[in-house]
Order: sequence, then C-alpha cells, then structure tokens
Amino acid sequence: MPVRLADKAVCIGPARSNMSYRNQQAVLGAALSFGADAIHPGYGFLAENAEFAAACEKEGIIFIGPSSKVIHQMGDKIEAKKIAKKAGVPTVPGSDGAITEFAEALKVAKDVGFPLLIKAAAGGGGRGMRVVRQMESLESDLSEIMSEAETAFGDSSVYIERYLTNIRHIEIQVMCDGETFLHMGERDCTTQRRNQKLIEEGPSPVLDDRLRQELAAAAVNLCREVKYTNAGTIEFVFDLDERKFYFIEMNTRIQVEHPVSEMITGLDLIKMQLEVASGIPLAIRQDDIRISGHAIECRINAEDPEQNFMPCPGTVKRFHMPGGLGIRMDTHIEAGYVIPPFYDSMVGKLICWGQTREEARARMIAALDELDLGAITTTAPFHKEILQNEQFVSGVFNTSFVATLLGK
Amino acid sequence: MPVRLADKAVCIGPARSNMSYRNQQAVLGAALSFGADAIHPGYGFLAENAEFAAACEKEGIIFIGPSSKVIHQMGDKIEAKKIAKKAGVPTVPGSDGAITEFAEALKVAKDVGFPLLIKAAAGGGGRGMRVVRQMESLESDLSEIMSEAETAFGDSSVYIERYLTNIRHIEIQVMCDGETFLHMGERDCTTQRRNQKLIEEGPSPVLDDRLRQELAAAAVNLCREVKYTNAGTIEFVFDLDERKFYFIEMNTRIQVEHPVSEMITGLDLIKMQLEVASGIPLAIRQDDIRISGHAIECRINAEDPEQNFMPCPGTVKRFHMPGGLGIRMDTHIEAGYVIPPFYDSMVGKLICWGQTREEARARMIAALDELDLGAITTTAPFHKEILQNEQFVSGVFNTSFVATLLGK
Repeated sequence: MPVRLADKAVCIGPARSNMSYRNQQAVLGAALSFGADAIHPGYGFLAENAEFAAACEKEGIIFIGPSSKVIHQMGDKIEAKKIAKKAGVPTVPGSDGAITEFAEALKVAKDVGFPLLIKAAAGGGGRGMRVVRQMESLESDLSEIMSEAETAFGDSSVYIERYLTNIRHIEIQVMCDGETFLHMGERDCTTQRRNQKLIEEGPSPVLDDRLRQELAAAAVNLCREVKYTNAGTIEFVFDLDERKFYFIEMNTRIQVEHPVSEMITGLDLIKMQLEVASGIPLAIRQDDIRISGHAIECRINAEDPEQNFMPCPGTVKRFHMPGGLGIRMDTHIEAGYVIPPFYDSMVGKLICWGQTREEARARMIAALDELDLGAITTTAPFHKEILQNEQFVSGVFNTSFVATLLGK
Repeated sequence: MPVRLADKAVCIGPARSNMSYRNQQAVLGAALSFGADAIHPGYGFLAENAEFAAACEKEGIIFIGPSSKVIHQMGDKIEAKKIAKKAGVPTVPGSDGAITEFAEALKVAKDVGFPLLIKAAAGGGGRGMRVVRQMESLESDLSEIMSEAETAFGDSSVYIERYLTNIRHIEIQVMCDGETFLHMGERDCTTQRRNQKLIEEGPSPVLDDRLRQELAAAAVNLCREVKYTNAGTIEFVFDLDERKFYFIEMNTRIQVEHPVSEMITGLDLIKMQLEVASGIPLAIRQDDIRISGHAIECRINAEDPEQNFMPCPGTVKRFHMPGGLGIRMDTHIEAGYVIPPFYDSMVGKLICWGQTREEARARMIAALDELDLGAITTTAPFHKEILQNEQFVSGVFNTSFVATLLGK
C-alpha cells in the first residue's frame, strides 16, 4: 500500500533490515539517484543514527531531524546527562561521569544510597545493567558488570545511579527551529511490559499544574542549551514517593506515540517537521498551543498475550478499522496484507481522544471491540483488559503495573 | 459488517426499503419482540416520520429524537414558518399561509416583488415549485401550479416567497433537552448540485461574528419556542446581496453532515442524543462549547461524474481508508463489500479538520488522493476538482457554484 500511494518507490534491498532499511549506502544512494531533497528517517532503523545524519549533511540531502552533532551528543548517555545538568534539568542522583575504579564507586554509593543501579556507559535497551541492594556486594557487582561490559561492548566504563522503583515514565514532546523552542505538553508512558510501552496517554493523570509546568520548562531549557532543531522527546522518570522528576534521555526523532500529542494539541507534528527541515521558521508561539481533552494510544501488536506475547505473523484476510469522532488508527494494514516475520510485530496504533480521560478510555474500549483483523491474533484484547482494570481507571499506578497484572 | 459488529441483529424484511427500513410495523415489531428500549432512526427512512415516532411513543419505545408532536409541527412548512415568526426568527418575505385565490397572490406579489417563487404547500424536495419573473405571468403561473399541485399531491394550496438567487445555505446544529437549548455553531452547505449537498463545512467562510451570533440566537429561540428535545438542524438561506438570513426549515433529526460540528466542537452528538433520550439532562452549557479550527465533509458517492453522476454499484475489491491527524471517514465499506443498487449511492463521508480552512482543505485533497475503492468509480475526483477550484479556495460563491462549474 505505501508503494501504491507513493509518487515514486525505489527498491533499496531485500526484506531483512540490515540489508535495506539499515543499509545507509542503499538509502542514501536511492535518494541521490532520484534527486530527493530530503529523507524522513521515521522512528526506527536509522532515525537516531548520527553517522547517517552526517552522511546526509555531507551529500547535501536534508535529514529531517536535528543535526548529526546534536544526535551524537544526546545519544551519549553520560554526555546527555552533563548537558542536562548544565541546563539546570534535574537528573537521577549518581555519578557525574564514567567510573572505572571501586574507590570512585564507593564515594558515589555513599552519596546516592541503596538500592543503586550500575549501568554500562555503552549499554542500552535494558542491557548492561545491575541493581545493587547493599554496600557488601558493591565491589563484586562492580567488577562483574565492568568485565561483562568489556566483553559485550568493548568498553568497561560504567556509571552509577539511584535505583528508583515507584516511578512513572513521563515525556515531553518538543518542536524547535534553533531559535524557537516549543513543547506540546507531556505523554505518560507508564503502562509498559518489559520496558516496552503498551499504552501512552496525555495529559498524565498524576501531575498537577505546577509540576507539569516545571517538567515542560526543563525540557525547553535542555533544547535551548543544545540549540535543538526539529521534533524531539525528553524522557523523565517521575518518582511517586518524592514527587520529583529526573531527566533520563532524549529521543532525537519523532516517536511512535506522537499522535497522542497531535490529538490533544491539534498540531500536525510531521507537517511541522517538514516545515522546520525546509527552513521555514516556526509560525506559532507557546501561547498558541492549547492542550484540549485527553488522548490514549494503544500499540496493537500481532502477538499472542496467552503465549507469552509470541509474534503471530500471517495473512490479514479481513480488516475493519474502527472509526468515528476522536478515533484514529495509523496503520499499514489492509485486507489481503501479509504480516512479514522480519520486523517489529506492531500492526497499527489506535489512538482515541475524548473531552476527559474517562471519555477517551470508554471510546478506546469500544474501538478495540470494533477492530477486526480476521484470524490474526493481536494484543487488542489485552489492551482492553488493561483499560478496564480498576488501577488503570484510577490512574494511580507505577511502571510495574503490567508485570503485576500478568502475575510476574 | 454492521451485523457482525452488532450485539444482536434482526431481519426486518427484504432489501427494498418500502418492505423493510420504511416498514413501520416491521421495525417496531422487531424492537418489541426483542425487548429494545429505544430506536435510533438514523438520518433517512423514518427519521422524520411523525407517525412512526407516535407509534413508538404509544408502544413505550423511546424514539431517539424529538416528540412526534414537534416532528409534525416542524414538518409542515407553513406551520414551521408561523412558529419561526412567533419566535422572532426572520423568514423569507412572502405569504403568511396557504394561498388559494389570485387576489391574495396579487397582494403578496406587490409586497414581495419579482422574481418570486410559488410553492405547493404539500410539495418538497424541489417538486411543486415555479419561479415567476414578472407580474404579467402571475395569474397563469398560479393557476397552472395550483392544478399541478392538486393532481400531484391532492392539495392545490400554495404559498409565495421572494425568489432569492445569490444565496448560501447555512444551518445551525442544535442539541436540546427541553430546558437547555444549545447550539454547536453553523455548517455552510452552499456547495450543492441539484439541491443535493456535496460538501459541507464549518465555520462558514462568509459570516462575521455578529451575523454568526444572530443566526445561532435565532436557531436557539426557535427551539425554545417549541421546547425542542434532542438533536436538530435549523436551515437558513443567507442572502449575499443584503447580507440577511432567513429561516427555511428545520430537520428534526441528526443529519448526514453532523460530523462537521463534532470535529469543530469535540462533542459526540450521537452520544448526546442517547443521553438526552435516556432522560439525562444536558451536562454542558453554551459557554462550555468552543468552536476550534475548521472542518470540511465530502459525501463520497459511487457515481460517475463523467456520466451525469450515474450510480455505479458493484463489488469493492480493494479498500483503503485515508487516516491520520484530523482525518475521519464514516463508512460501511470494507474490502469485499457489494454496493447494492437499492439505496442512495453514498459509500462514505470523508471529514477533514484543520487549524484553518486552508489546512482542512489541503488535508482533504491529500485524503481524497489516498482513498482507494479499487475499480469502483466515485465522486472523489470531482470533490478534489471543487476543492482546488479558485472560487472554492476564496470561499466566495453561492449555491449556483457547482452548476456553473459543470457548465449547466
């Protein structure tokens, strides 16, 4: 379908992404051969690849996103934390930079307290992390994680942070042109399974106006610090015990859950990305942005929740997309589509807007019931179960909510 | 698909509507047999049938709409005009009631001026009307239309109105519970072909704030006069020469184009219809309703604009529904659906919202391009032509715009 809808389509390689979508030369070569002005990197594959952005810059092709320099800066977790501190943005208490010796670790541990987290500087996506619960095991844990990191990433440096557990994940959507730095409010992504977001919503049900403003101001200050351009997301953890937030990382790209912000602001973020990338200054100011109502997004995956979320590729014989006021589905699916086994198992994002959180929630439940992919098993019934759960209804839960629900 | 999605489905007769959807006994019988609490009459068939509403009332089934009494009052054009006058709502200058003699007609014609329109009181939908351009032909035209009306409707009574040509059709959406009378702003339905609406939009590009408020106040006053309940639409003509509006009729039901109002207010009108019909008082007040942005609706018909809009039923082999921010399609179509020859040829309504009229228009053009019904011929390319027309872009046109475009 995307090929059918496109003005022009160029084959950049076989299905496996390392030979096509992740193949920088293939993507850039296609753009150059056919005279493309710009590349929109989407939200996967090369979207946060500083090297690819630099290659585009070198070839005079617009990379629709921030500069390669900023992607590189924010992609380095220790560097990003330094920038955040410089911009006055709170970060999780911990080491200032890379730690290579036990003496440094001991000093930090005394400041931070237990439990704490040792993270490989070169790690990511949940790899190269260890929770340390007491002083007694600090030395042995440090030495183990450093040698693991050396083996896995060729870099033994680590950093230490306070280990927070009663937290929510809250992120701020930004759009900048290097001179104007705008935010579109927050998205709450606390409903996760194994660090994968299942449901995102905005506004967050746990923030009050003061915290909401502080969070947004922190995000904007960070962007100003690096003269950020284009769309981005600043991720924070919000400690429910102390009601404090800490910067964790920045995603220097558009995100899967960006429709949540579009639905509550009425702003077309992709259109704005294209405008900024074209050199058109942002036409609106912060005061023009009004958050209206509440939006919820469910990431619908072709996975079987009964079989430990095993992917279920196959042919979509019948497809009905829910519709009506406040209901939006972003999908590449149509009747007859074959879900390939090569990629992420997401088949679509269902987004519902309502005047209130409760209206959005009720609308989402109806939309999930209406969604029909024939015989393909999806996570839609599991999303429905979450949405009907008392704790979700109350809005009061932390990142371990789904694990508890699954009895794990 | 609707049957598949429904909790319960009952067959009420064969495809031809006079034997099923228009068969009052069949519909009411099904509702009674299966213990239904209420009937939503939709926007066609029995939706404005006072007799059917009365039958529901008698059987203790809630008819989701106003009372049979009000449907009857507003369905009688002469009676409706009287009520409008009583409520202080401007009506098209003309006779106060039915005219049966030339002497009366002459008196009215002198007041109203030429050109004027003679309308059969029992006519409707463009039937039983004649334009009279000069005094000389009044007597012969009157006698002809009266005898035609006697033959066609068994009722020779007529009424006379000023014949307005440089006009726009503008209507006000209302929602009432008998005590609270709310309006959701206007919809401009000037883009018509042979009195059939092709494109509806809101807000109207020709009204200023003062006129907009006057129009809405007139609609609300009319509703208050008849203690209206549930959803309704008050239709006006807006005379572009004199910049004055006149009441023409009230639709005592939800309309095809109601999504335009939903998209600019964020209010779910069908939900509100169900709440009001359930006896729940309206929870919002006029001040809570904010018009935001601009919405445009295209009625997509399976018709061939090249063949004088001949209906094109058939099998939809492939279906892709456009999506994304501000795009909504209300449709019963899915891949494999057979468009039957028995009903109206509308296959869906495409509604686009934007921050501005221009954004909504651009979005609609992209959505029309994206819409794909395989080999089925539709009016989508014709809608695109209209949307790209300079006059449509300017917003300055009257009800003869489409006829002129078609060269007729």
